[in-house]
Amino acid sequence: MSKFWSPLAGALEPYVPGEQPKDKTYIKLNTNENPYPPSPKALKAIADAADADLRLYPDPTCDLLVRETARYYGLSPKQVFVGNGSDEVLAFAFAAFFDPAKPVLFPDITYSFYKVYAKFYGLTPKLIPLDDDFNIPLGSFTDGGEHGGIIMPNPNAPTAKLMPLRDIVTLLESNPDRVVIIDEAYIDFGGESAVKLVPQYPNLLVVQTLSKSRSLAGLRVGFAFGSEELIEGLDRIKNSFNSYTLDRLALHGAVAALQDEAYFRETTDKVIRTRERVSRQVVELGFKATDSRANFLFISHPDIAAKELFLRLREKGVLVRYFASPRIDNYLRVSIGTDEEMNAFLTALEACVKELR
Amino acid sequence: MSKFWSPLAGALEPYVPGEQPKDKTYIKLNTNENPYPPSPKALKAIADAADADLRLYPDPTCDLLVRETARYYGLSPKQVFVGNGSDEVLAFAFAAFFDPAKPVLFPDITYSFYKVYAKFYGLTPKLIPLDDDFNIPLGSFTDGGEHGGIIMPNPNAPTAKLMPLRDIVTLLESNPDRVVIIDEAYIDFGGESAVKLVPQYPNLLVVQTLSKSRSLAGLRVGFAFGSEELIEGLDRIKNSFNSYTLDRLALHGAVAALQDEAYFRETTDKVIRTRERVSRQVVELGFKATDSRANFLFISHPDIAAKELFLRLREKGVLVRYFASPRIDNYLRVSIGTDEEMNAFLTALEACVKELR
Repeated sequence: MSKFWSPLAGALEPYVPGEQPKDKTYIKLNTNENPYPPSPKALKAIADAADADLRLYPDPTCDLLVRETARYYGLSPKQVFVGNGSDEVLAFAFAAFFDPAKPVLFPDITYSFYKVYAKFYGLTPKLIPLDDDFNIPLGSFTDGGEHGGIIMPNPNAPTAKLMPLRDIVTLLESNPDRVVIIDEAYIDFGGESAVKLVPQYPNLLVVQTLSKSRSLAGLRVGFAFGSEELIEGLDRIKNSFNSYTLDRLALHGAVAALQDEAYFRETTDKVIRTRERVSRQVVELGFKATDSRANFLFISHPDIAAKELFLRLREKGVLVRYFASPRIDNYLRVSIGTDEEMNAFLTALEACVKELR
Repeated sequence: MSKFWSPLAGALEPYVPGEQPKDKTYIKLNTNENPYPPSPKALKAIADAADADLRLYPDPTCDLLVRETARYYGLSPKQVFVGNGSDEVLAFAFAAFFDPAKPVLFPDITYSFYKVYAKFYGLTPKLIPLDDDFNIPLGSFTDGGEHGGIIMPNPNAPTAKLMPLRDIVTLLESNPDRVVIIDEAYIDFGGESAVKLVPQYPNLLVVQTLSKSRSLAGLRVGFAFGSEELIEGLDRIKNSFNSYTLDRLALHGAVAALQDEAYFRETTDKVIRTRERVSRQVVELGFKATDSRANFLFISHPDIAAKELFLRLREKGVLVRYFASPRIDNYLRVSIGTDEEMNAFLTALEACVKELR
């Protein structure tokens, strides 16, 4: 540790993103990117925005994008916040709504960035263990125990499992004085969004992203939906950190992406169809797979260690995600690629099973 | 204050950016944007990057841009950090290097975001008063008093005054155990950068941006240059907050902008020539102007209140920046526009003087 670092910098345990390999070309199924390109209309809007106006700061309040997003989701613009990917939105939300004096609740198996944010802001996480089938034990979030707020992804990552909307209502109604953040990065692949609950529940914050279902991971745009007071809280944090986190290209591209509903439906439908088919096929190869409502599978083999499979797949040019973490270290997370990519994955996986069993 | 806000969210005093008016078209001299468009090569690189690869996450370590920046400034890639505008770089730097247990030193008249960052991280600012001519009293930063670090812009904003490099050396050598951050947002308009000191002083962090001299305020790209241990400290903060703060378009555009040295020289020279000319002319109109080495002027009239001038200029369609802050509330900050814009500004200013005197 450097003598120049603050105590905070020394204490952090930073997030490690999935690898972006530069050594060779892989079939890349490790960071839940969408296999289909972004909407051509979004690409055109971005190229058109590469003009002389880039000399000017972007609109710090992102009015156009906020209005378009509000329109799309049937909300008021004051119920919408936009940020530099849902990671930044979550980073702001942890600061805005969670009090270091009280524990913040989230599942023990979940997006691994949550505990990093908690450390960054000096929060104490209270991890709620999922049951053996990776279901969220609702009772542990609704038992009236003292806490400072709740965050969970839905569908959960990396388990891919969806919590029904009625359970989210229970969460919200059991915790009326605490903010409940539902991280819906993967909701468009078959889940029912909690956005419709925003007008009724002032304690609900829904977070979404253009990175997955809109194929725009490279553009960095995320959203939060919530009551006016929650959105104002996020604005206060943002404006104490960086007034302009979305560049002009991202603002234009995001508006166009939201307007191309037909393309969005077509590509998400394709991902869902591929997921259903591949899910059946990995089971036929002897794997256990959770009931995925996301753009990835979470699979485990009864006889072959996940780490071995991960390394062998990598040798064969297929990159998936392996987590050396308790309870899930015998699972692989496999992003849904194109049908061609998934066929290559299945061929490689079948070969791995033969070689390793 | 909302019951859902954290104590931090309630206590903040967020930054207020210069207005980006939507009511009508102004001659916009209020946010220190460059009047010339970005390099055509940068615009082309951005348009070319609006392709199918936007479905993929950007490189989280920004290798290409880091390498190009290191090459440009004669540093090693491990001495370079890139972020979403210098505001984000500064936000990370405050977290990485300043300890809440000790005061952080900066001038009383300076970039107003510094005190906002301090509040965000629970730091205690110790404001060092500039002298009556807005010079930085070096002794107050080098007297051996206990503190947790130093930050100052050079040239200072909004005073536009430059501190010579030998004074920065004095700062660094007087505070060998503390990080000294030199915020060089405006350095390319006539100052000598401290970047060349990076290899000698492990406690020096230099922050720059593409927003001003590279006409890319709309792209959000900033840099920090420092010893490997300082850059590692910034990386630790970034990776506890948001792994991908620069989108693919910004990464490509920034590389191309740094490669177009001829265009950079041409446009910054034009801004400097216009500044020198307009600086003389405002003095002829009876104003006092500091010796600006930035892309803006800081001017004051002996008989007319700056606020009156600000409002009257606005009525005439010219937007400048007025700060209702102690010691500078009789000054206007005027960004350098094109020659045509500055002629219109001078005409409006002369009329204001006649009307208000």
